Amino acid sequence: MPAVPIGQIVEFVCGEYTGPGGLSVTAVNTLREAAAGELSFLSNPRYAPQLQQTKAIAVLVPKQIGGNDVRWVRVDDPYFAMSQVVTRWFTRRRMPAGISPQASITPGAKLGRNVAVGAFAAIGDGVTIGDEVVIFQGVSVEAGAVVGDGTVLYPNVVIYEECVIGRRCVIHANTVIGSDGYGFATNRGKHHKIPQIGIVRIEDDVEIGAGTTIDRAAFGETVIGEGTKIDNLVQIGHNVKIGRHCLIVSQVGIAGSTELGDYVAVGGQSGLSGHLKIGSRVQIGGGTAVVEDTPDDSKVMGYPALPFRQFARREALLKRLTAKGELGGHVG
Amino acid sequence: MPAVPIGQIVEFVCGEYTGPGGLSVTAVNTLREAAAGELSFLSNPRYAPQLQQTKAIAVLVPKQIGGNDVRWVRVDDPYFAMSQVVTRWFTRRRMPAGISPQASITPGAKLGRNVAVGAFAAIGDGVTIGDEVVIFQGVSVEAGAVVGDGTVLYPNVVIYEECVIGRRCVIHANTVIGSDGYGFATNRGKHHKIPQIGIVRIEDDVEIGAGTTIDRAAFGETVIGEGTKIDNLVQIGHNVKIGRHCLIVSQVGIAGSTELGDYVAVGGQSGLSGHLKIGSRVQIGGGTAVVEDTPDDSKVMGYPALPFRQFARREALLKRLTAKGELGGHVG
Amino acid sequence: MPAVPIGQIVEFVCGEYTGPGGLSVTAVNTLREAAAGELSFLSNPRYAPQLQQTKAIAVLVPKQIGGNDVRWVRVDDPYFAMSQVVTRWFTRRRMPAGISPQASITPGAKLGRNVAVGAFAAIGDGVTIGDEVVIFQGVSVEAGAVVGDGTVLYPNVVIYEECVIGRRCVIHANTVIGSDGYGFATNRGKHHKIPQIGIVRIEDDVEIGAGTTIDRAAFGETVIGEGTKIDNLVQIGHNVKIGRHCLIVSQVGIAGSTELGDYVAVGGQSGLSGHLKIGSRVQIGGGTAVVEDTPDDSKVMGYPALPFRQFARREALLKRLTAKGELGGHVG
Repeated sequence: MPAVPIGQIVEFVCGEYTGPGGLSVTAVNTLREAAAGELSFLSNPRYAPQLQQTKAIAVLVPKQIGGNDVRWVRVDDPYFAMSQVVTRWFTRRRMPAGISPQASITPGAKLGRNVAVGAFAAIGDGVTIGDEVVIFQGVSVEAGAVVGDGTVLYPNVVIYEECVIGRRCVIHANTVIGSDGYGFATNRGKHHKIPQIGIVRIEDDVEIGAGTTIDRAAFGETVIGEGTKIDNLVQIGHNVKIGRHCLIVSQVGIAGSTELGDYVAVGGQSGLSGHLKIGSRVQIGGGTAVVEDTPDDSKVMGYPALPFRQFARREALLKRLTAKGELGGHVG
Repeated sequence: MPAVPIGQIVEFVCGEYTGPGGLSVTAVNTLREAAAGELSFLSNPRYAPQLQQTKAIAVLVPKQIGGNDVRWVRVDDPYFAMSQVVTRWFTRRRMPAGISPQASITPGAKLGRNVAVGAFAAIGDGVTIGDEVVIFQGVSVEAGAVVGDGTVLYPNVVIYEECVIGRRCVIHANTVIGSDGYGFATNRGKHHKIPQIGIVRIEDDVEIGAGTTIDRAAFGETVIGEGTKIDNLVQIGHNVKIGRHCLIVSQVGIAGSTELGDYVAVGGQSGLSGHLKIGSRVQIGGGTAVVEDTPDDSKVMGYPALPFRQFARREALLKRLTAKGELGGHVG
Repeated sequence: MPAVPIGQIVEFVCGEYTGPGGLSVTAVNTLREAAAGELSFLSNPRYAPQLQQTKAIAVLVPKQIGGNDVRWVRVDDPYFAMSQVVTRWFTRRRMPAGISPQASITPGAKLGRNVAVGAFAAIGDGVTIGDEVVIFQGVSVEAGAVVGDGTVLYPNVVIYEECVIGRRCVIHANTVIGSDGYGFATNRGKHHKIPQIGIVRIEDDVEIGAGTTIDRAAFGETVIGEGTKIDNLVQIGHNVKIGRHCLIVSQVGIAGSTELGDYVAVGGQSGLSGHLKIGSRVQIGGGTAVVEDTPDDSKVMGYPALPFRQFARREALLKRLTAKGELGGHVG
């Protein structure tokens, strides 16, 4: 771990700081867990009371914060500033380097410059791997798939054939891209498989968590738009189109052919029915069941989904009705 | 990709067609995405307006549809007809062939005729693999397991010991069959593991999506009935018995010892408590929490589950009550 | 399978038994599925009617049960007694033995005594593996990770770098420990990754099911306390702290920085928001959305979570209101 002079950090984040200049920062940590010598930050106001007790040597705080403390570094956005500092000085992930002799790479695969492939990874026929790609142990990239420059595939990721992954993507362990969509035509009491002959196309700068599944299209493409970030254990059905810069939290399920605009945020464990149109900048609370088209800029939650305000009104009503002595007085 | 004369397709699907005979079909696609030369279909009435704009060269439509268009091929069931056409002419999955020298196959395993085993697959002692089985890279088939003729195991599937997979099954990447059920006996403040000494038995023609987990029985068998289709990220607990030709959509959880009849359909993200009896042909809406036995032919949804009609009545009531000016008028 | 004299079993479980002494038990099974020669047990009263029809040669029953049957072995806790008997005589999991020549173990890894490593497992630089550890095929243990004595890692488990796994833990197939938490700082319309530089620390005697994901901390540690048992397809966010001896059922999601006390039980498919404090001995029903701090010994369920009693009252009220003829009479 490095020791970074506080002055360098203040300059890097364009901060305002009046404390002593000779300090060095050895790590970044939360207010509660920071030890002497570590930098911390305040982004969630919930943790403001910890500003007093923290042992951090310096703290990134919002510009408009009241009070004063020699340890404070005032910045526009402490969370973003912290992320920049960590990225610049304190990242330490160790990656595989070079091509493992224990990998299986078919002669028909094309690898870019400076590619790393871990042990027991399998690269199929006709695969194209860009420059600076890192492939961990146990990854499968099947025939005809494309992986863009600078992308990282963690252990046991599976990319089914012909799928296309953009540049600078990150896909965490045991995630599956391009498995068959759930498509069956029922005839005379049997469910007949509809071959899923489309692909998945993931645009640049997408991050996908661990254990997530994204199905290939029945025809055409399942698309994940540029800059979208998907969490763990998310299910994306066939022919779904997700726009740019969306946030899809863990355990969300999006059924087939549903389309999301840009900057949509979907809370954890929400479910979206198939064949819906969800506008841009829609916010969907956690655990919500979306069963209807939802216009731009909506905020919805509940089972089934209601506008935030309506959901709150319904909850308040139900609380009032079930309070002792009222309508529900002789119930239960 | 082939070019299939339209006449062959019309004959194959027993369709009615009055358009030009010399056309050739190069692919199948949705109405919106079909390009010139491609065949499309109308199964969901929601997409009927796209019949005008589609660039498809021909469209499979229901026999009873009103209007007329030289491009239409009238059939009994356009969705099934489409699936048959795709299966017959337009499937293209590339499978591993032969036994990879990089696979690990114990001498005590028995392999049928024409088996493919990919790199880094591990086949344990006493395993029996049927004819024409395809095992992708990274699959584990543990000691004593049985895999029936014609079954396909996609990358990194894990079959725990002694489990039995039927014929013509398809299991997608990173799915786990036969992990220990969640069984602990709590005694003096500690949870003691109950060894799970049963197995999973999967009957013929079952398809299972990616990232799904099916636990082995504590004793006896967890059973998935013939022809049942299970989606991605589904959890099936120990000793569950699922009947024949059921449809279990993604992220469903079925707790231990619950039994489903035949032709049960379970919507995405639903949860079924343990030790329940769910009859045949039961339909369970998405996101439903089933906590009671459910008779044959029921249709239920909600948290907790209610009959469809009752759920709708409750929703209508709540909407009315929370409408402005009514009972909830001075709330929120 | 062994044949264990009934007398040995009765003595081992400190049971009361008046039946014939010369019998032998060949297996343990449920009341319904037990065959001649097999031992069964009654723990869930729901199955009491099956006591008559069972073919079991002997049955572990609660001490206080009414009636009499020569086959009964009365014990304090039949479920625990059964688990002890199975563990003592009827377990049969076959484990890998020795170090596979097809594993990839970096010279910088330290292995304890009597370690087993299956084919295609990859052990990174600086990893420490304790004594008697069993690592199945396809497992990845990345640089600097620690695995305690007697722990079992089933196929394709991934342990990211620097994570620490305790002693006697069991982690089932395709589970991921230490993937990056979901942390992004949004700035000028882009989501910038916050490097996740903390770890996951799992204490002794923890069992984790298949397909589960536990994210590493942004800073510091994500912690799973001693003796806690986690089911399949569970999502644990970064910086979550779970206490000792908790039970987390399948498909639960716990968002970042939430803390649970000891002996918390979380029902299947429940979701806990981030930054919450959940006390000790809290019981959370299945499918519950917990969005507020929850004090010790609470019992909550619902969306959003309510105390059990309040949830029941609300359900009763809604049932009454929607009954035909009442307030909802002219609805739907």
